[in-house]
Amino acid sequence: MSEGFATAEYRRRTAEAQARMDAAGLGALLLTTEPEVRYFTGFLTRFWESPSRPWFLVLPAAGAPVAVIPEIGAALMGRTWIRDIRTWPAPVPEDEGVSLLADTLREVGGPVGVPAGAETHLRMPLDDFARLKAESGLEFTGDAGIVAALRAVKSPAEVDRIARACAIAGRAFGRVNEIAAPDVPLSRVFRDFQALLLAEGADAVPYLAGGAGPEGYADVISPAGDAALAAGDVLMLDTGAVHAGYFCDFDRNFAIGRATDAQRRAQARLVAATEAGLAAARPGARACDLWRAMAEVMGVVPGRLGHGLGMQLTEGLSLTPRDRTVLRPGMVLTLEPLVETGNGRLMVHEEVLVITEGAARPLSPLAGPDLPVI
Amino acid sequence: MSEGFATAEYRRRTAEAQARMDAAGLGALLLTTEPEVRYFTGFLTRFWESPSRPWFLVLPAAGAPVAVIPEIGAALMGRTWIRDIRTWPAPVPEDEGVSLLADTLREVGGPVGVPAGAETHLRMPLDDFARLKAESGLEFTGDAGIVAALRAVKSPAEVDRIARACAIAGRAFGRVNEIAAPDVPLSRVFRDFQALLLAEGADAVPYLAGGAGPEGYADVISPAGDAALAAGDVLMLDTGAVHAGYFCDFDRNFAIGRATDAQRRAQARLVAATEAGLAAARPGARACDLWRAMAEVMGVVPGRLGHGLGMQLTEGLSLTPRDRTVLRPGMVLTLEPLVETGNGRLMVHEEVLVITEGAARPLSPLAGPDLPVI
Repeated sequence: MSEGFATAEYRRRTAEAQARMDAAGLGALLLTTEPEVRYFTGFLTRFWESPSRPWFLVLPAAGAPVAVIPEIGAALMGRTWIRDIRTWPAPVPEDEGVSLLADTLREVGGPVGVPAGAETHLRMPLDDFARLKAESGLEFTGDAGIVAALRAVKSPAEVDRIARACAIAGRAFGRVNEIAAPDVPLSRVFRDFQALLLAEGADAVPYLAGGAGPEGYADVISPAGDAALAAGDVLMLDTGAVHAGYFCDFDRNFAIGRATDAQRRAQARLVAATEAGLAAARPGARACDLWRAMAEVMGVVPGRLGHGLGMQLTEGLSLTPRDRTVLRPGMVLTLEPLVETGNGRLMVHEEVLVITEGAARPLSPLAGPDLPVI
Repeated sequence: MSEGFATAEYRRRTAEAQARMDAAGLGALLLTTEPEVRYFTGFLTRFWESPSRPWFLVLPAAGAPVAVIPEIGAALMGRTWIRDIRTWPAPVPEDEGVSLLADTLREVGGPVGVPAGAETHLRMPLDDFARLKAESGLEFTGDAGIVAALRAVKSPAEVDRIARACAIAGRAFGRVNEIAAPDVPLSRVFRDFQALLLAEGADAVPYLAGGAGPEGYADVISPAGDAALAAGDVLMLDTGAVHAGYFCDFDRNFAIGRATDAQRRAQARLVAATEAGLAAARPGARACDLWRAMAEVMGVVPGRLGHGLGMQLTEGLSLTPRDRTVLRPGMVLTLEPLVETGNGRLMVHEEVLVITEGAARPLSPLAGPDLPVI
């Protein structure tokens, strides 16, 4: 499944962006990254993995967006609601779409807003950006946070895709007993778990992390080594699997062979912290309020305890003491408590929820306080 | 397998960069993207999938690189040869490493070279980059193409990893008969083929494209739809699977049930073009010479006919009429001919090779001129 949403959804997003552009005094938005372009068009391809070609979307102050893209993407962009598609025969490093984009922006008019705040980047060479500014003669500035603000609140259709991604991962987690056992190398568990995610319906598995050890794991970003699982280890798998362009992001812990008391206590505490976060996750609460609700259960808490997600594995708000983002219905976020288990080791746990008018609705199938033994 | 190379290799890369920095009058390089940071450190994690945190590597004019990174990455970076690791408790949007990086750059001294040419981007918010420039008070400029030039020529250890990735994909292609047949939806073939790649040893499958139809496929970047394969279709699968941080990138065509004469002719022509490219792929030849050798076999040829690869799915040279890059031993590239089969349809073929002192050495198991029927 890879089709976009109804055209009405893209028109609504465009109109909302344009209302904010008007308030911010922007004549155009220039978008260059995969989620930004897809948000307004539905253009979905794994071809962004290749860095050779830049892709541009110009959102004018009125009317539909204009795609300025390599000709290899014209057919696929033509299947979206975008009708004004301008192409060049990329790759042409000496003019990688720059003059075509400069012409388009001059036609649309400035000032040109480019996403420039937290978590953003410009996906085009800096030399080309400098040339674009010079050739267009327009004023360039930030996007006033417009794209991030719109993306923070998910539509029902978006929530549905995230829920499906979570359901896929939930089924795969339910089958970890098929692939994990004493003497199986962690690297093989990682490969086999990705295969389970695909078998259960994931389109792709852009992210998988995890760890294993008797007292937890040393960190949560290392790739899998070839060391084998042993009885008494706790195994954690954390995935960002993708369904129709939307991520899930949650993890599960498993005791291998037998669970120690310390592991059981950690699991129960992690689940209690998650429940506290879930109870606090109501419209009007702030990100820092959720952090505090979870921290009160956990005690010492380094790092953030959750984050938004959607078209990206992590996006938007962070559950930290400093993030005062006010929760609104449609926001999707993870709760990600952590306990230190001693000797520099830790255990983590993560679930996904969506904010509604009332109580938050879990999108991942909530884990119970009992550590499963496999 | 996810360990880095021998420290001697990173020291050699650093020394070569520093010799070129000296010639270009640069006091430091500032690197922000995954392959750039990994090239000089061996730092390998899928955590880059999260856009929340920037990662910085500073290469001084002399001595070892300095990592300026989120504290969540300190343990993993500590397992590389890098000893000067400076961290901040990211995410902290109000100062996302900017002041720490500015201090580090001031200590090292400028001018600061930032990759800014073809295929590059800056993986940090533009607002933060502006602040960094102001806070450091240093001169910022391009990197004079230093990083791209170094990365273009692969070491034997790098070639070995690409060869292993290619061997993994070759074994998976040999099993496509297990997953593709009439009435199987293309989306399921895509999922199952990724699982085959993992079963054969891929660490991850960041890229998969393909298509199917009786006269070829409409384009090569669209995601898979749910339409089923039918007897008489030609199926193409093109993968970028990753082993130990290095990509393969090649494809295979399969006739479903039976092959038409037109499909057989197209396959034979594609393989003949590949052979012409392989024969021309010697040190001293230019990228455009390989393009010409293949184009002479193919006739009409839109688009590029191959590209470099390594830590990225595509990187470096392009086989186009305009690219005059001179081939040198250690360069790894793909040959990717294309034939138009009528009605806007096409067939493509792709292989991977490494340039040696003599004849090029194929890294993918070369396909034959006979279209396999499954």
